[in-house]
Amino acid sequence: MERQNPYNHGLDKNAANYVPLSPLSFIERTAVVHPQLTSVIYHQRRFTWAQTYQRCKQLASALSQKGIGEGDTVSTMLPNIPAMYEAHFGVPMTGAVLNTLNIRLNPESLAFMLDHSQCKAILVDPEFSGVIQQALALMTGPKPYVIDVDDAHFTQGGRIGDIEYEAFIAQGDPNFDWQLPSDEWNAIALGYTSGTTGNPKGVVTHHRGAYLAALSNALAAQMPAHPTYLWTLPLFHCNGWCFPWVMALLAGTNVCLRRVDVKVILDQIREHRIEYYCGAPIVHTMIADAPDAWREGIDHTVHGLIAGAPPPASVFKRMEEIGFDLTHVYGLTETYGPAVGCTKQPEWASLSIDERVEKNSRQGVRYPLEQDVAVLDPITMEPVPWDGETIGEIMFRGNIVMKGYLKNPAATAEAFAGGWFHSGDLGVVDPDGYIKIRDRAKDVIISGGENIASLEIEEALLLHPAVAAVAVVALKDEKWGEVPAAFVELRPGQHADEKQLHQHCEQHLARYKLPKKYIFGELTRTSTGKVQKFALREQINAN
Amino acid sequence: MERQNPYNHGLDKNAANYVPLSPLSFIERTAVVHPQLTSVIYHQRRFTWAQTYQRCKQLASALSQKGIGEGDTVSTMLPNIPAMYEAHFGVPMTGAVLNTLNIRLNPESLAFMLDHSQCKAILVDPEFSGVIQQALALMTGPKPYVIDVDDAHFTQGGRIGDIEYEAFIAQGDPNFDWQLPSDEWNAIALGYTSGTTGNPKGVVTHHRGAYLAALSNALAAQMPAHPTYLWTLPLFHCNGWCFPWVMALLAGTNVCLRRVDVKVILDQIREHRIEYYCGAPIVHTMIADAPDAWREGIDHTVHGLIAGAPPPASVFKRMEEIGFDLTHVYGLTETYGPAVGCTKQPEWASLSIDERVEKNSRQGVRYPLEQDVAVLDPITMEPVPWDGETIGEIMFRGNIVMKGYLKNPAATAEAFAGGWFHSGDLGVVDPDGYIKIRDRAKDVIISGGENIASLEIEEALLLHPAVAAVAVVALKDEKWGEVPAAFVELRPGQHADEKQLHQHCEQHLARYKLPKKYIFGELTRTSTGKVQKFALREQINAN
Repeated sequence: MERQNPYNHGLDKNAANYVPLSPLSFIERTAVVHPQLTSVIYHQRRFTWAQTYQRCKQLASALSQKGIGEGDTVSTMLPNIPAMYEAHFGVPMTGAVLNTLNIRLNPESLAFMLDHSQCKAILVDPEFSGVIQQALALMTGPKPYVIDVDDAHFTQGGRIGDIEYEAFIAQGDPNFDWQLPSDEWNAIALGYTSGTTGNPKGVVTHHRGAYLAALSNALAAQMPAHPTYLWTLPLFHCNGWCFPWVMALLAGTNVCLRRVDVKVILDQIREHRIEYYCGAPIVHTMIADAPDAWREGIDHTVHGLIAGAPPPASVFKRMEEIGFDLTHVYGLTETYGPAVGCTKQPEWASLSIDERVEKNSRQGVRYPLEQDVAVLDPITMEPVPWDGETIGEIMFRGNIVMKGYLKNPAATAEAFAGGWFHSGDLGVVDPDGYIKIRDRAKDVIISGGENIASLEIEEALLLHPAVAAVAVVALKDEKWGEVPAAFVELRPGQHADEKQLHQHCEQHLARYKLPKKYIFGELTRTSTGKVQKFALREQINAN
Repeated sequence: MERQNPYNHGLDKNAANYVPLSPLSFIERTAVVHPQLTSVIYHQRRFTWAQTYQRCKQLASALSQKGIGEGDTVSTMLPNIPAMYEAHFGVPMTGAVLNTLNIRLNPESLAFMLDHSQCKAILVDPEFSGVIQQALALMTGPKPYVIDVDDAHFTQGGRIGDIEYEAFIAQGDPNFDWQLPSDEWNAIALGYTSGTTGNPKGVVTHHRGAYLAALSNALAAQMPAHPTYLWTLPLFHCNGWCFPWVMALLAGTNVCLRRVDVKVILDQIREHRIEYYCGAPIVHTMIADAPDAWREGIDHTVHGLIAGAPPPASVFKRMEEIGFDLTHVYGLTETYGPAVGCTKQPEWASLSIDERVEKNSRQGVRYPLEQDVAVLDPITMEPVPWDGETIGEIMFRGNIVMKGYLKNPAATAEAFAGGWFHSGDLGVVDPDGYIKIRDRAKDVIISGGENIASLEIEEALLLHPAVAAVAVVALKDEKWGEVPAAFVELRPGQHADEKQLHQHCEQHLARYKLPKKYIFGELTRTSTGKVQKFALREQINAN
């Protein structure tokens, strides 16, 4: 006889005790509780939370009038300007999915994405109207409704659309009665990953995950109420790591930034007393390397989250010296941005700066609300020992993992094989449980049957004072199969030649790991600050 | 033709991307990430998070061996000692529901609760073994397995049970493979409310709500990582407002406290550098009124959350003067404790202390993750105007509202009528959206057809320097139906008579609101610091 559970009888969900989790609830509350606090600043434009919420409702209303709702896609081709921030609320308020396009992409890639997502409307910045016009011409499916977003701070480019953004949202009802998603599992955003081969994959995230990711970020960064936040991180990148929703949750102030310029960044930090910003290592390196005079007058602690590529320890060291508090985080588009963070243990405060930097430069431990992160043997799915040496694949499990890839059941099934999300990144676990990335699976160099982590060689080269950045890739070799080759970017005014670097590496690396070739010059990076190793591999092996 | 939604195809929940929300995840993560940080302190006993997690698993394992699991109830009759903290994890780890009994209750009430909840096991402190023995004798249903929890700091009382707690958990497997709830809607706790008439109602809360309530508390209090927390608030009261789970989330330190003694409280604050505590106004008043010498050496800011009864403004003022940061919160067992808080607006910092205290002493606005709180006309369910005058009933809606009352469908349906949880408290909304409690619905005095809020009269009397506490209730009157009567507790060494208080009230109240009778003496309070007005009403109307 089945035992009756008295706690499951007559105690069902109802309108009073159950609401779908959605980050849209954050802005609704903040508009009521803190209507007069500043929400968004862009040059001379300033909005309050009451105003931003109203503009989001108007955007949602105007989109709804165009027939856009659940199951539809609305795209953006925008830098970090107020309309981009508003889209993170106005689009999902209609039930539609927000697809933030990478503004560095070419027309072919963009056309693929607009077709694949069946885009119904797109917001376009004048800087990108040309490339979008070409993408629209390349599309094979129905074309979206095009909304130009004028910007007084970018006077080149031109309109290509049906209407300008301010005129568009003026059509919307400021009291639009938007609804929470019918289910918290409904999609909120679509982000295409820059795959190395084949078509990009469309990562679908949901309201529940975005809600929890925002909370997890707020906790991990220990952000107080009303933080000031500078938008150095592209909003198109994993929805700005969910920070648009974090800022609505905490009733903070978003300071917009059209492009990354270190002088402007430091001026904004001073003027608005910015407390938080996020970015790829290149952003932090620029700040670290800026002339002291540019930082003058910044007398408060600035907290930065750093991710996007394994950063050199020297950046952590320099930032600590100039009084910036950096925290290393790690994640993927599939995990809503950061899902691992290098949580600082209280006892690290008493370490030497070098010891502390070594601790801080690791990827770290699972984020507060990510259920589990582990380094597993991808064949046996068993965890690797916490010895700092045994390499496995970093895998995630929990509510802050995507729904899957849009219209790609094979890739979805592969990514979720064995009940874990497979990141494709290789790592080790230190004895204290902190994860260190060793490499992308596809970036491992297999030389004479030995696996060589390119990152280990890169870390060794970064210890040389003349080296600013480095990328090590596999060079085909008749004898060894593959050997390491190093692309090296030197610091301005510094010099090092192949022989000097070779001698330097001999002090730090086993013989079989020494690069067999050095190529000097500036490294080309993606818009998210990543060096595309597959391109370097193609280049060097074509020679 | 129904439109196909591409975002709902092939993007289902799976083991990699969906996990039930439960505060049990907090302790599991903290035990991995911060195993060596201090979790619980009780006199000379100190535990790390690794140890506390292991003890919780052992408790869960030992209970499971007794056949306890989903659908079962495990009760506690414990003060704020380590076993009580552990029960908040160990019991739900088995799938069972934690029922924390109010240690001030009489055997008859306890017997009702043990029968009603079909209690399978109970943890008993020696201080309460007598009353539990009587309750067990009064039970009509099967009796629970009884576990005595010895305490070196309470040597009276005796064992009445089958086994002692340490021996019991020693039977448990320290590596017990506990499971998250099969559904986040599963019950986590049962708390009986002290109803004014009839049998107490059993409030059932769930894992999802407890998870979100803990997050909401952490955000509302702006708690950093690793806070130190003093257990002045009874853990049996709404599960200590969910703070056991907050502390696991933030890897903080719990300092246990067997009973409320202001000297001990201040010593613990000094010794452990306590940053946070919660409590009824009486706790804060005791701290405010303590001799200055007792606070000597406390040179850090202490943050207190105050709730449980409308506190006098004088407490806020005094606490600000001695450097304690008080935040007023409000909620009910049905809302997992606080669900409204008096969020401080940045501009209040520049007000005079009196103006700020007036702002801070209001109940406030909805908690960060509570979906909605409103003051509605209970007949029309329309919101009252934000005029600070129009009285309505305070109602809640969202994920931080109970599942319902155990085995009481009629009370559940009544509480959730119209899609809102009806608090039974009457309030007004100030023009800035902040809620002020006016009264319990049943405490309104109807005099000559006019509604009089007893709280307004109480606030007026509290302005008199000799008045420490006051309770105003309805006295039956042949002419007016009801008239106000005031029970007054004077400050030690102070004096005031009926005539003086009458003259004082004339300056603050309309004539028809003036108390017609004064009764001087100490007010009897419940264990949660509330004055039971129904008892005072019975007393005065029986005379």
